[in-house]
Amino acid sequence: MATEEIQQEEQPATTTATGESSPQVYINQLSKHVGAEVTLRGWLYNLRSSGKLLFPQLRDGTGVVQCVVFKKAVAEEVWDALKNLGQESALSIRGTVRADERAPGGFEVDVVGAEVLHAVEGYPITPKEHGTEFLMDHRHLWLRSRRQHAILKVRHTVVRAVRDFLDNDNFTLADAPVLTPAACEGTTTLFEVDYFNDEKAYLTQSGQLYNEATAAAFGKVYCFGPTFRAERSKTRRHLTEFWMVEPEMAFAHLDDVMNLAERFVSSIASRVLEERQEELKVLERDTSKLELIVPPFPRLHYDDAVKMLHEGHERGELDARFEWGGDFGAPDETYISKQFEKPVMVHRYPAAIKAFYMARDPERPELALGVDVLASEGYGEVIGGGERATSLEFLEEQIKAHELPREAFEWYLDLRRYGSVPHAGFGMGIERCTAWMCGIEHVRETIPFPRMLYRIRP
Amino acid sequence: MATEEIQQEEQPATTTATGESSPQVYINQLSKHVGAEVTLRGWLYNLRSSGKLLFPQLRDGTGVVQCVVFKKAVAEEVWDALKNLGQESALSIRGTVRADERAPGGFEVDVVGAEVLHAVEGYPITPKEHGTEFLMDHRHLWLRSRRQHAILKVRHTVVRAVRDFLDNDNFTLADAPVLTPAACEGTTTLFEVDYFNDEKAYLTQSGQLYNEATAAAFGKVYCFGPTFRAERSKTRRHLTEFWMVEPEMAFAHLDDVMNLAERFVSSIASRVLEERQEELKVLERDTSKLELIVPPFPRLHYDDAVKMLHEGHERGELDARFEWGGDFGAPDETYISKQFEKPVMVHRYPAAIKAFYMARDPERPELALGVDVLASEGYGEVIGGGERATSLEFLEEQIKAHELPREAFEWYLDLRRYGSVPHAGFGMGIERCTAWMCGIEHVRETIPFPRMLYRIRP
Repeated sequence: MATEEIQQEEQPATTTATGESSPQVYINQLSKHVGAEVTLRGWLYNLRSSGKLLFPQLRDGTGVVQCVVFKKAVAEEVWDALKNLGQESALSIRGTVRADERAPGGFEVDVVGAEVLHAVEGYPITPKEHGTEFLMDHRHLWLRSRRQHAILKVRHTVVRAVRDFLDNDNFTLADAPVLTPAACEGTTTLFEVDYFNDEKAYLTQSGQLYNEATAAAFGKVYCFGPTFRAERSKTRRHLTEFWMVEPEMAFAHLDDVMNLAERFVSSIASRVLEERQEELKVLERDTSKLELIVPPFPRLHYDDAVKMLHEGHERGELDARFEWGGDFGAPDETYISKQFEKPVMVHRYPAAIKAFYMARDPERPELALGVDVLASEGYGEVIGGGERATSLEFLEEQIKAHELPREAFEWYLDLRRYGSVPHAGFGMGIERCTAWMCGIEHVRETIPFPRMLYRIRP
Repeated sequence: MATEEIQQEEQPATTTATGESSPQVYINQLSKHVGAEVTLRGWLYNLRSSGKLLFPQLRDGTGVVQCVVFKKAVAEEVWDALKNLGQESALSIRGTVRADERAPGGFEVDVVGAEVLHAVEGYPITPKEHGTEFLMDHRHLWLRSRRQHAILKVRHTVVRAVRDFLDNDNFTLADAPVLTPAACEGTTTLFEVDYFNDEKAYLTQSGQLYNEATAAAFGKVYCFGPTFRAERSKTRRHLTEFWMVEPEMAFAHLDDVMNLAERFVSSIASRVLEERQEELKVLERDTSKLELIVPPFPRLHYDDAVKMLHEGHERGELDARFEWGGDFGAPDETYISKQFEKPVMVHRYPAAIKAFYMARDPERPELALGVDVLASEGYGEVIGGGERATSLEFLEEQIKAHELPREAFEWYLDLRRYGSVPHAGFGMGIERCTAWMCGIEHVRETIPFPRMLYRIRP
């Protein structure tokens, strides 16, 4: 470990323009080199000048640092090379690290030498405002901007938090396939693929059914990969390709899922708070909202959620009166979540609006033992899950009632023929969770290369 | 943390057939409960009987334990329920944990009560031999077998080792898209998808080009997800859907990739040895071979690899004489790797057989700065990578020469227009690596639901 850290900090030295050498370091390691001469490599983020001074800001992927070039302190060719250098030019800079409380990041570098590796003109994304379509067309470059950088750093932390939580909780990773022969929840929103010999395959919408097989093999499992929805909807919450994590537990009931969900979501929020303070500052995130995400979360029966919506309607805060039996729309979810400081878990929805494999409430069979976790601050549903039906006969009826192709589900029915036990789980979309953590409007910024209705490039 | 561990060990107690209760534990936690009465829940893995004794083996996903039922020690209905119980029946068993050195796992349970949750008849996979096609058709059940269980546990450890290594080495996770508008390495082996409005998309073969964009934003990055090859080949090394991890580093050269690759692969092997001794025993893996996987790995110039193949041919160990300029076939790779105890890194291949984006050796431009890591024991190529070309003009020529659609690569060429720097990386297939770690023949057992030429079910 110690060896690896040293390698990261002090890369092999390169020779600079003046023929001397100094250790290569990353910008996020500058605190360990105050007073020392170092070499930085990266790209020109911004350049200001003031008479005999230049202030190039360098970014290297780990951070941005302001450098100070005093004309008399560098060779003439260095000054000339730097003074009109274009944004995103690649360069290496040699200089002395100085702590400066006023500087963003806390350090500045007094330049003694520099080498331009690639001089750039006309970088398309300038500090001025650009339209969304333009930025999306230049996503491969837009990722270099400070805000996008911060969002994707938060995304990485969300992914790590998810995997560490489940791994430490003794879940076994069992990846579900992307190419599937049948639909899990209806066929209208499936992407079709040409497999071999004129056979058709579909891109997965959920690993759930496969999870039920692996849970019977491993007890507690999760799958975590890209999932696909060919929805013709263009909202700030939809991507056609998004990442979903789905844990599933054998010998578990609805309450176990709710207990897991609140610990799970809370662990993500606390990890983001712990590791991504810098990025949350860049995003101007109100972190006090994230600090509220701790167990227990309020649990709200669907009936009580409907009552709450009726009260909202009576007070004139909701336009339409919600009808018992329906699924919540975005305004309904927002209204419900605004009644709480924390995420809220709505459970026991009408079975008619839920998937065929849901277990029923034994006391009220018209209700499914499902739960949705509504994020705080109106970010909508981030988790959907519940308990699965265990009876072979019940599932055979459901497959018939939903007009699903029975033959495609034979293997799934085997799970009820051979050692059927109570089991339960949920799915969480990574992009919605990341948008919530970041406090940003649109999920399109939470994945490196978003895929949407009219967007498959770059 | 402490709270979580207790929750895992001691689940809420359930009432057993005799009306009493005892803490629910997992089989891999039995060592902490020696002498105590516990409740186990799981599936009947096997059942032997001997007069007034029954020996049900219970599996719960964390392990398998042999239980001992003495007829006089249990109620008559418990004995009757158990004595003819079918394989994979679900049950809960209450009993006292006893350490027994002769028992697999080191423990046995003396049963005092049991409850059958789901009695099963005619489980299709019996202890007798089954054909591969039969087992693949029943993959959703086959996963419960001890060998498959062990392989997928190793797979999980490989994935964790990969992610932990890269995360600890300050790589940023930047997922590449699955749905892509163009091919990365040729169009003949692509799966085509119907996107919206008659537009076509393709399933990704590699996240490499996207990695080059994110490396310019984050410095060191990786993507890790499912990738697809529509190859009509039916070999033990091919899947149509497999998981690939691809790290990429800005300001890096071929040597940096080789240094990274040997540390990376070694960290996986040592993690598997550390965490999966039990599973490696089940798989009868010769672990001494895995212990040899430590840096440095031998580095072999392509020219020298060819010389080695010529010597092999002269000694009659290879049928055909290898021609300089070609790519190695499986027998060549096997021959080369058998000359070494460790994995071997073959570098500087003829550019003509490598991808268009490869950088050239400045001293011999007919060679590409690429490297393949050949696994030990004849497991073939597990890593392919190298240094990428930085020159806009060179890449424009290559795209033309390879007859690739220029317009689809405009965004990629932007990376050479705006801050082009040396960069390098590699890709490693998770299933091949897992097969190697496990010492098994075929990659189809290293993924929960394999997709192959004639296989898209279950």
